[in-house]
Amino acid sequence: MSVLMHTLHVELGERSYPVYIGRDLLADSQLLASHVSGSQVVIVSNETVAPLYMDRVKAALGPRKRLTEVVLPDGEQYKTLATLSDIFDQVMAAGHNRTTTFVALGGGVVGDITGFAAACYQRGVNFVQIPTTLLAQVDSSVGGKTAVNHPLGKNMIGAFYQPAAVLIDTNTLQTLPPRELAAGLAEVIKYGLISDEPFYRWLQLDMPKLLAREEAALAEAIERSCSNKAQVVSADEREGGIRAILNLGHTFGHAIETAQGYGQWLHGEAVAVGMVLALELSARRGVVARDEVESLRALLRAAGLPVEPPADMTPAVFLELMGRDKKVVDGTLRLVLLEGVGSACIVDDVADEELISLLESHLSRA
Amino acid sequence: MSVLMHTLHVELGERSYPVYIGRDLLADSQLLASHVSGSQVVIVSNETVAPLYMDRVKAALGPRKRLTEVVLPDGEQYKTLATLSDIFDQVMAAGHNRTTTFVALGGGVVGDITGFAAACYQRGVNFVQIPTTLLAQVDSSVGGKTAVNHPLGKNMIGAFYQPAAVLIDTNTLQTLPPRELAAGLAEVIKYGLISDEPFYRWLQLDMPKLLAREEAALAEAIERSCSNKAQVVSADEREGGIRAILNLGHTFGHAIETAQGYGQWLHGEAVAVGMVLALELSARRGVVARDEVESLRALLRAAGLPVEPPADMTPAVFLELMGRDKKVVDGTLRLVLLEGVGSACIVDDVADEELISLLESHLSRA
Repeated sequence: MSVLMHTLHVELGERSYPVYIGRDLLADSQLLASHVSGSQVVIVSNETVAPLYMDRVKAALGPRKRLTEVVLPDGEQYKTLATLSDIFDQVMAAGHNRTTTFVALGGGVVGDITGFAAACYQRGVNFVQIPTTLLAQVDSSVGGKTAVNHPLGKNMIGAFYQPAAVLIDTNTLQTLPPRELAAGLAEVIKYGLISDEPFYRWLQLDMPKLLAREEAALAEAIERSCSNKAQVVSADEREGGIRAILNLGHTFGHAIETAQGYGQWLHGEAVAVGMVLALELSARRGVVARDEVESLRALLRAAGLPVEPPADMTPAVFLELMGRDKKVVDGTLRLVLLEGVGSACIVDDVADEELISLLESHLSRA
Repeated sequence: MSVLMHTLHVELGERSYPVYIGRDLLADSQLLASHVSGSQVVIVSNETVAPLYMDRVKAALGPRKRLTEVVLPDGEQYKTLATLSDIFDQVMAAGHNRTTTFVALGGGVVGDITGFAAACYQRGVNFVQIPTTLLAQVDSSVGGKTAVNHPLGKNMIGAFYQPAAVLIDTNTLQTLPPRELAAGLAEVIKYGLISDEPFYRWLQLDMPKLLAREEAALAEAIERSCSNKAQVVSADEREGGIRAILNLGHTFGHAIETAQGYGQWLHGEAVAVGMVLALELSARRGVVARDEVESLRALLRAAGLPVEPPADMTPAVFLELMGRDKKVVDGTLRLVLLEGVGSACIVDDVADEELISLLESHLSRA
């Protein structure tokens, strides 16, 4: 039924799964139903997305003996253990057993918390991702990282738990608020920076098409992003090594999100600033040409993203929050830097003074 | 340093781990330290066990850069998401990163909740079990089932997460209250029933030695129990099939625990009654000799365990709560029955009427 569909595969042995990308995929009942065995389904969504797409998903699922809709409030500030507990209460009360399937219908918050709920409910049930924001489509729905936040740090409580399938209906981007489209573009740009220079150059040229939400350009950006991510995840599912490059800009970004309070800065906005800081640090170390830093700023600005950290943060706050990051190994901060556009590396020799100097110069501009 | 130590291995490929059983193992600093790499440790215990053994474990660990003690209230009623959240708060506040090791020092509740916390903290950290009750030593510490309870059902939220090692110091049984010793013996008897008739016959003869806490008899009972469990777990880690036989008596037992409120009946006590009901059902079906039911009652009574369900429960309450059990597959109740002592089977053809008749006859005796 879909006009055009691409299928990627995340190769993880017995945990492998398809990522479908295309227009009107939600209208294709075969596709969703083929990954939802059994008579019980839990659809988790939020107050913004449910009115737009819940009925379409229910129609695609067809009649089920037990179908429970869990509608969460919208926002990163609800990605908590308390919300997780609410989900369990509703699913338990409705009597779902371990043959049930959890379907995540929404953005990254819905996907992360639903995936974690599926990982824990009765020690693990079937799970399908239907991401409806660009950020979730190109990043959080693929790769099996699920989590909730802790007041002292982002994504601190979670599981590696792969979905049975990811359905990306590009139509859903037509209703996405501009600020959220931009936040997703930050992660799209990230894939170019860390592993795909031709893609990055294409983004520099064709950003206007993405902002105009041209169907073909969006599908291309999503497919290239997911393909880059799938390769990295297949090589290192549990982030023992190479997977860490996906965190370019994230250690700085998480510090911004935590300091500002979840839900103030969007994840993609914080990552955008984090990427500028990481590239600037790479340039200061002489491994990246300085004009690439300016090019990145220009690209991010064109995408509608911030390029400087919030003015009310200090280097000391950054250092404190970055020290709590998951990428800290036995007290040593590990950062993703670039060796050039399309090539990332992980370093553990960044001195506090180097960070303070970097942050001071940026905070004075903000 | 230990007088005598046996080592079993739970074979699970790259997740394999040793189970050490012996006297004074807690005094052997090499043993514990060899499974706690890194400079950070979280020891989770409870108010009863911590005063007895916390110092010994800390001495065995030696100096660490970051050592956090989390002492929980004692009891099944605290095996909740709220307690889990408290653990995360303390561990986050102390600044542990993902190179930390969680050590569970206590009974089944401490082991289950600590294992689940280790599974979720930063998406999974290293984890060592030091079970101090007989029940935990022969059952919950081996096999990787971790969980917390939900008000509507036991162990409904959790993960399969294997420890790096299990240290069973048989000395700790000398301080165990008699009621908890008996609760552990219920699970010991279970292994004889489901897979080891010679062990069962030995238990019938030597129960007095176990109740007198004779060191050699206890070590033998623990080793045989863990060995039986390790074999089943190695064959079916995630309970796709054969592992379910470990749940003999548990579907009835969980209904009792849930109905009475967690912490009223001990898990082993509820399982003891559940095993009587399962064996009685097997006898009614003509596959087990009736005198084996009477022998089991005698053995459980000798161990100090109950053999009849609580008088205030009705068959309707049992059926309602059993229908919510994890062993229910797409609406069909699956029960573990016996084909004879030492041989279990899983059936899914037990009619409600059959259960009601069974429960009515037992509730009238209670």
